[in-house]
Amino acid sequence: MKDLSNLINYRSDVKVVDATLRDGGLVNDFYFSDDFVKDLYQANIKAGVDYMEFGYKASKDMFDVNKFGKWKFCNDDDIRAIVGENNTDLKVAVMADVGRCDYKTDIIDKSESPIDLIRVATYLNTIPAAVDIIEDAAKKGYEVTCNIMAISNAQESNLDVALDILGQTPVDVFYIVDSYGALYPEQIARIAETYTNFAAKYNKKVGIHAHNNQQLAFANTIEAVGDGVDWLDGTYAAMGRGAGNCAMELLLGFLRNPKFNVYPVIQFIEKHMNKLKEDGVVWGYDLQYLMTGLLNQHPRTAIQFTNEKRKDYAQFYQEVVAHD
Amino acid sequence: MKDLSNLINYRSDVKVVDATLRDGGLVNDFYFSDDFVKDLYQANIKAGVDYMEFGYKASKDMFDVNKFGKWKFCNDDDIRAIVGENNTDLKVAVMADVGRCDYKTDIIDKSESPIDLIRVATYLNTIPAAVDIIEDAAKKGYEVTCNIMAISNAQESNLDVALDILGQTPVDVFYIVDSYGALYPEQIARIAETYTNFAAKYNKKVGIHAHNNQQLAFANTIEAVGDGVDWLDGTYAAMGRGAGNCAMELLLGFLRNPKFNVYPVIQFIEKHMNKLKEDGVVWGYDLQYLMTGLLNQHPRTAIQFTNEKRKDYAQFYQEVVAHD
Repeated sequence: MKDLSNLINYRSDVKVVDATLRDGGLVNDFYFSDDFVKDLYQANIKAGVDYMEFGYKASKDMFDVNKFGKWKFCNDDDIRAIVGENNTDLKVAVMADVGRCDYKTDIIDKSESPIDLIRVATYLNTIPAAVDIIEDAAKKGYEVTCNIMAISNAQESNLDVALDILGQTPVDVFYIVDSYGALYPEQIARIAETYTNFAAKYNKKVGIHAHNNQQLAFANTIEAVGDGVDWLDGTYAAMGRGAGNCAMELLLGFLRNPKFNVYPVIQFIEKHMNKLKEDGVVWGYDLQYLMTGLLNQHPRTAIQFTNEKRKDYAQFYQEVVAHD
Repeated sequence: MKDLSNLINYRSDVKVVDATLRDGGLVNDFYFSDDFVKDLYQANIKAGVDYMEFGYKASKDMFDVNKFGKWKFCNDDDIRAIVGENNTDLKVAVMADVGRCDYKTDIIDKSESPIDLIRVATYLNTIPAAVDIIEDAAKKGYEVTCNIMAISNAQESNLDVALDILGQTPVDVFYIVDSYGALYPEQIARIAETYTNFAAKYNKKVGIHAHNNQQLAFANTIEAVGDGVDWLDGTYAAMGRGAGNCAMELLLGFLRNPKFNVYPVIQFIEKHMNKLKEDGVVWGYDLQYLMTGLLNQHPRTAIQFTNEKRKDYAQFYQEVVAHD
């Protein structure tokens, strides 16, 4: 049982990262209006959010700029058009995906960029490539996190090796990423123990990015807070791939640091997020995501089920069990 | 951190209670079709559910039988029409609300009734009246639970006194009820410790009935399982008052006892629950329920907001903060 004081007091080390544009962009191919992005930036400032992730630094060789909104690529000029000189406490983050980012050319020196933080996303089998991006970003002057995806399928011994390698890089934060929404809180507790042990050894921090396939994204995030995890990802109205993420409005309601304020989040959701849903953008918990989460599978089949507007849940269950 | 084996093995003492008709009936005034109820009964049998709660034994002096569906009153004959002699492993439960049930006349001897379990619902300030119903039901031959509602507002010292009083009655199970959906998992852990300590002293079991205002109904339920709570309430598609309950499909997916089977639940939801939603019956997590949950308030204002089809969440937030 956790200490009673966890719910009354707070750790000032806790940082909140808004991943709405980045993970939410996977739902609408990053086609957010400028009004949406400007209002989100202002809402994050008012809400006391620490980092706003604008999207991916995706390779323009690999992805057609005409087939995605601009936040798939996060040109520095596009960020600058939203944040200006960003003389605020809100820092700017982008994600660099291993194997899908021309980081050597597309990420310039921090002194000339509006970006503060590079989030390096990797699978366990591409750790050496992640190390290259981490070292490049750190040398250019950025804060860096490393987000190890899909760990619900990882062998613990491999995860140990990965964290030990990453500990020796200049990365600032190790991220727990439950890509499949398959983990239960007591597994988060065990994984957080592993991550925080390596973090203590190498003087790093630990973060969490959860998915809501089993309606546990918020529960897993607050479990992690209680276990010493400091960097917490949330998205407005839980917008994110498939079943979505930890809802920012739940997270800020929970956190006790008076710098956080849930009201601007509610205002933003009322103005923008419900409209997105009315316009036909679909995300969030539903039976098909429960099933892939339960079976610890990538949600791609569930996303396809959603996109095809299928409702034959029982048939889909038979299909995913057959895949297992 | 809980024992590793909790997620791999199971306790055979765990019982699952389907509360769809009872808590879901609060959403549609208990107007379920006979087909719905018959199919639910069959689905529960196939799914390995232990108890099916059919509704309330509400006083016909206090409530007009023409203004509610029959499961508000649960006449024995109506239950008999669904279950016959009920030669199955699924037991039949009904709820008796303190102050709203003519239990002396409406609950007959178990030997002549299809009902197995009386669930006595009470607030902390009506414990002596609950004791009367418990003793009456036990004398008539029923299993009995006592569901203490709205404990997120209770003083712990009063709760101790209530459990000590109930321990001396013939009640079988003490129920933790998070009526406002206000509790976090680590509070559930502390409350479960209190309940299980009194349960051990008096040779009782402990149950949990959660609400989903902060998307924690499932998370709180599985936290409770890990803390020694054996009786778990779920509802199909989480149907229940306001933000709804712990989803049966999430719960049966989590439990490891091979007697449980999630597939019949998915089949039932596909056939019946989505149709209810299409017909305009509204329940489930939404911002207004988050707000009353966060502020530890009764959800009645949020239910009114829902019924009026309001979408001005920011204005509602101001209203509930003003109530606080």
